[in-house]
Amino acid sequence: MIYFHNDYLEGCHEKVLAALTKTNLEQTPGYGEDHYCAEAARLIRQACNCENAAVHFLVGGTQANLTVVAAALRPHQAAMCAVSGHINSHETGAVEATGHKVMTVPSEDGKITAHQVRQVVDAHYADESFEHTTQPKLVYISSPTELGTLYSLSELEALSAVCREKGLYLFLDGARLGYGLAAKDNEVTLADLARLCDVFYIGGTKVGALFGEAVVITNPVLAQDFRYIMKQHGGMLAKGRLLGVQFKALFEDGLYFRIGAHAVALADQIRHTLDEMGVDYLVPGTTNQIFPILSDACLDELARDFKFVEMERVSPTHRAVRFCTSWATNQENTDALCAALRRIVFTIC
Amino acid sequence: MIYFHNDYLEGCHEKVLAALTKTNLEQTPGYGEDHYCAEAARLIRQACNCENAAVHFLVGGTQANLTVVAAALRPHQAAMCAVSGHINSHETGAVEATGHKVMTVPSEDGKITAHQVRQVVDAHYADESFEHTTQPKLVYISSPTELGTLYSLSELEALSAVCREKGLYLFLDGARLGYGLAAKDNEVTLADLARLCDVFYIGGTKVGALFGEAVVITNPVLAQDFRYIMKQHGGMLAKGRLLGVQFKALFEDGLYFRIGAHAVALADQIRHTLDEMGVDYLVPGTTNQIFPILSDACLDELARDFKFVEMERVSPTHRAVRFCTSWATNQENTDALCAALRRIVFTIC
Amino acid sequence: MIYFHNDYLEGCHEKVLAALTKTNLEQTPGYGEDHYCAEAARLIRQACNCENAAVHFLVGGTQANLTVVAAALRPHQAAMCAVSGHINSHETGAVEATGHKVMTVPSEDGKITAHQVRQVVDAHYADESFEHTTQPKLVYISSPTELGTLYSLSELEALSAVCREKGLYLFLDGARLGYGLAAKDNEVTLADLARLCDVFYIGGTKVGALFGEAVVITNPVLAQDFRYIMKQHGGMLAKGRLLGVQFKALFEDGLYFRIGAHAVALADQIRHTLDEMGVDYLVPGTTNQIFPILSDACLDELARDFKFVEMERVSPTHRAVRFCTSWATNQENTDALCAALRRIVFTIC
Amino acid sequence: MIYFHNDYLEGCHEKVLAALTKTNLEQTPGYGEDHYCAEAARLIRQACNCENAAVHFLVGGTQANLTVVAAALRPHQAAMCAVSGHINSHETGAVEATGHKVMTVPSEDGKITAHQVRQVVDAHYADESFEHTTQPKLVYISSPTELGTLYSLSELEALSAVCREKGLYLFLDGARLGYGLAAKDNEVTLADLARLCDVFYIGGTKVGALFGEAVVITNPVLAQDFRYIMKQHGGMLAKGRLLGVQFKALFEDGLYFRIGAHAVALADQIRHTLDEMGVDYLVPGTTNQIFPILSDACLDELARDFKFVEMERVSPTHRAVRFCTSWATNQENTDALCAALRRIVFTIC
Repeated sequence: MIYFHNDYLEGCHEKVLAALTKTNLEQTPGYGEDHYCAEAARLIRQACNCENAAVHFLVGGTQANLTVVAAALRPHQAAMCAVSGHINSHETGAVEATGHKVMTVPSEDGKITAHQVRQVVDAHYADESFEHTTQPKLVYISSPTELGTLYSLSELEALSAVCREKGLYLFLDGARLGYGLAAKDNEVTLADLARLCDVFYIGGTKVGALFGEAVVITNPVLAQDFRYIMKQHGGMLAKGRLLGVQFKALFEDGLYFRIGAHAVALADQIRHTLDEMGVDYLVPGTTNQIFPILSDACLDELARDFKFVEMERVSPTHRAVRFCTSWATNQENTDALCAALRRIVFTIC
Repeated sequence: MIYFHNDYLEGCHEKVLAALTKTNLEQTPGYGEDHYCAEAARLIRQACNCENAAVHFLVGGTQANLTVVAAALRPHQAAMCAVSGHINSHETGAVEATGHKVMTVPSEDGKITAHQVRQVVDAHYADESFEHTTQPKLVYISSPTELGTLYSLSELEALSAVCREKGLYLFLDGARLGYGLAAKDNEVTLADLARLCDVFYIGGTKVGALFGEAVVITNPVLAQDFRYIMKQHGGMLAKGRLLGVQFKALFEDGLYFRIGAHAVALADQIRHTLDEMGVDYLVPGTTNQIFPILSDACLDELARDFKFVEMERVSPTHRAVRFCTSWATNQENTDALCAALRRIVFTIC
Repeated sequence: MIYFHNDYLEGCHEKVLAALTKTNLEQTPGYGEDHYCAEAARLIRQACNCENAAVHFLVGGTQANLTVVAAALRPHQAAMCAVSGHINSHETGAVEATGHKVMTVPSEDGKITAHQVRQVVDAHYADESFEHTTQPKLVYISSPTELGTLYSLSELEALSAVCREKGLYLFLDGARLGYGLAAKDNEVTLADLARLCDVFYIGGTKVGALFGEAVVITNPVLAQDFRYIMKQHGGMLAKGRLLGVQFKALFEDGLYFRIGAHAVALADQIRHTLDEMGVDYLVPGTTNQIFPILSDACLDELARDFKFVEMERVSPTHRAVRFCTSWATNQENTDALCAALRRIVFTIC
Repeated sequence: MIYFHNDYLEGCHEKVLAALTKTNLEQTPGYGEDHYCAEAARLIRQACNCENAAVHFLVGGTQANLTVVAAALRPHQAAMCAVSGHINSHETGAVEATGHKVMTVPSEDGKITAHQVRQVVDAHYADESFEHTTQPKLVYISSPTELGTLYSLSELEALSAVCREKGLYLFLDGARLGYGLAAKDNEVTLADLARLCDVFYIGGTKVGALFGEAVVITNPVLAQDFRYIMKQHGGMLAKGRLLGVQFKALFEDGLYFRIGAHAVALADQIRHTLDEMGVDYLVPGTTNQIFPILSDACLDELARDFKFVEMERVSPTHRAVRFCTSWATNQENTDALCAALRRIVFTIC
């Protein structure tokens, strides 16, 4: 059985493991106040071309999301996002548990538009009884989105502009950021994110680290007292240097970008195979996630050797599924999947 | 500079690291639903002689504490603990952030008594306006405590009995449990904890693991839906198997107990040295934490080569400080500390 | 200017005021532990044919809603409701501020169906990663709904049955219950509500009281410690007897039902007038709320003498608005509105 | 049986009732946006000599306290108060339910000092691991305190100064403010409070109103979006004008101050009687609360005709109790109590 169903199946990239092993017996201060965290933060600020950003390391994505939202909002304020946004759909109400409503807007492709933000904010203040509804104050986006799509530079610029005009924070969840940066139609750099967002995070868990996300805060209002709020939510790792060591390994020589490129190259091979056979997609994409629509018979056969994620039924005979590549996917397994797809789709479907 | 100021200065025990390295490229399901977590849970249930316990793995202690309290209490219910209890004093209001008051009782040695619990509960219900105060519902204790003391078996039995009589949960924070189990006057086994507590956790972060705490829930009411609440608080690690791999390594051949014994043996050497010189302690103890009272001059000299934690000023000339040993402390550094203590205390103090 | 835009424009019914005046200088215990609250609770239990119900009095609807939800749910559990449900749309995230997600289902008429509840619950547990989403545990409905519609007896029975089958609580918000009970097509009695819901409230604020809602809890699990949670949320009125005095006045001789009948009779006159002129409705109804669709020209003219609520634009030329009657609406103002409608609709529209 | 055990036994002052009755059938906008609230707010700003203060009306004290704290604090910030502070001791964890810790300091007389505030804040920031503890950000005081004591002008000025120096908010709970303003040794005016506090409230419930507290916010940072937070916590009364009508009646011709003077004059008679007999007090005071220490035999006899509150046992033979006067206490009952005290104390004690 070969697993393609997500990008956190294995441990970490060998270079990250080597860094952890090499530093294992060093003695450092705890809670992120060590020189590895300092160095990793410096490398990330450099990569983001943003000298004044605050960089904090958290263990996982849900923790990063809830900590940022809790730090950003007053009690009556809400985070808005696409209905498919991870904070709305897959975090067991983590944001609500910090007291805040998640306001959703419809989306087909996992993205929201500047126009939607403007509409929600304008409608809020146009309502005579606006104080009876939560105040939209933070826009949560993910890129790549949960559906593998990417914001273009102009889309991000428009979102950033409307947020600044209306006094909202723009927060980008980059759990799979490395795979977005490497996509062939990507237009956005880390420096763009630092320039356009108030806060975003660079995902490590899914992109070569054992665990960890690097939160980059460019808006000083949000940076104020952030470590208290990390601690309050159980997000301040005692051996914080573990996160520093990993992100240093990922950013000191471009490993983070090579990892992204590797996974996307293999995903492109799978997409190429599917394209050749005329397979349709639930949502088209260029990152490490692929959402083909295949017949039940085809998927039943494929499931004998490969694990993938069920997305949704598209027709009485066809379902959309998800395949993921990652830093750990190898050429051999990718070839096996492509060969199986060719064989099964041609013969069965 | 040699560090004795806490027990989370280094990474992890070499056997834990070896297990992580060996399994690094295996593919497993996420979120703790892998065979390593299952096996580690089985080993822990076995060590606790409690076949029906639920075992869940969390990354850190604050997270374990807040998740257990959130899972246990209705909104008007409070956790009670010693004023020195970690949830009261060092978690930035993590329990309050889940909506619950921490009710404290005075304590000199970090422990609370069954009598105190009975008094608080009886006083609550004796108050005509009891509904205007939070209802005590959970007793939080740590063993070893924040002051390195241990509950005797009879103290724990009395606490358990009063909690059951009054309908409160007993929750033991075992962040340093391994060092308590190895102390020479320890009377309490894991099986005792499983029998007497509703929930407790076995600390890994400070006892040989890279990170991680194993929460053992013996009361089925508390076990209900616990994973939802872990997820909601960002405590469900994507690569959950990292915790399973580590706890399997710690419990498959008694490593956890050997680590405890190692640290305590070295701490005993330091205590022996201090005892020889007639040094007093803020609180006496037998675990890996030592709280001597030394003169300012003595401490200034010692601070040139050793790092320790300031506890409090005891007199105009003397302060109490803390030294910690751990799985990673070696004989050489311990000898160096003992030699320095002998030299400094005899010549300066 | 005559106001028809809501049902809380005035103070209270003269009999309620008389009761408050008459008892003004009596000395009673505070916090709802007086004989008026006891007597009002007894009358309500009698009217509900439910001897074991707990009855508590709260000042307002948002407070009743948030207190019930907070009392009912564990942290990971959610309240589900129609997208138009008051807790979702008009309470500034009061439920979320207690830590809980509001899960919505689409609705055209303000109601949700047993089928929708079953679908949501089944989909939750069918999802392999169900622990990553909030657990639906309470169904919030209002009757009359925010759109003036009523649940039929069979609809309520089906909702109750699916909730019991699936282990969810059924909570009915009766802010305008008196106007529902008096509607000509109403099929549901207070005894039906007590039999079918786990908890519901009988609205006073909009139905003759100065302020106040009577929460009726028939499920003993929800009744446990409810007063603590009232107090915690600032909902335990110091002079609680003010609520007891009012609800006693409303229920000791059927005043509550007469008030409902009065308002509905006047609303029926307005509906009759609109029907005669062939006016359409946003949502048809039989309670004290009326949602006609009228032309902009017509509404502009009407707005010179009458105040009503804007609902939504229905076409380039027409808008839906809301008129409300209440216990305080009189025949004279109703006649004036009907006459104006006839005049304006015939001449202008 | 004559009741002296609290100051919320009756309804409201006759002039307040008359105002409610007179305006009962007026139609006004809801939620505090009516002209009565506007007028009451204007009168209060005038009485406070503070033209820019925001004035909001809430139904009760716990609601006022939790709403102010929720509006003021970020998640990691705490309210500090005397251990006897109402938010700590009698609100069922209402502040904690909004996510915030209440940090207490010891107090014998219900007051805290500027020195204590300075110590707590300095100790917080002096702690190397300050981010592991909640950040003190708001000082909650009550005046009169829960023990009937008053802050002197210089005490308040010192508190205000240290709060401003350290960046904390000063919040005064004035549930019994009217009785403090009328006390013979009172030094503090409403204008002083407006000048020295960031926010305070003028209690109505215990001082002549049927219910209601007027929150006066002088710090514009705290005023921002306050109505959202009122609504979110169920504190925005639908018929908000009921609060405006009452506070207008209390402040349009000095009624609030006359009510205070009346209750204090009667309390002074009781104190005079006790003083004559050489009775000691738990805490001395000059407001409407009296805390004498009397023998058990004496109190048993007194309890046959009078109701009072038990405070605490002071010796094997004596207990401290509380008597309250209020706007509603009359001379006849006061004379009866004084006569009984003279008779019982002289003959039995």
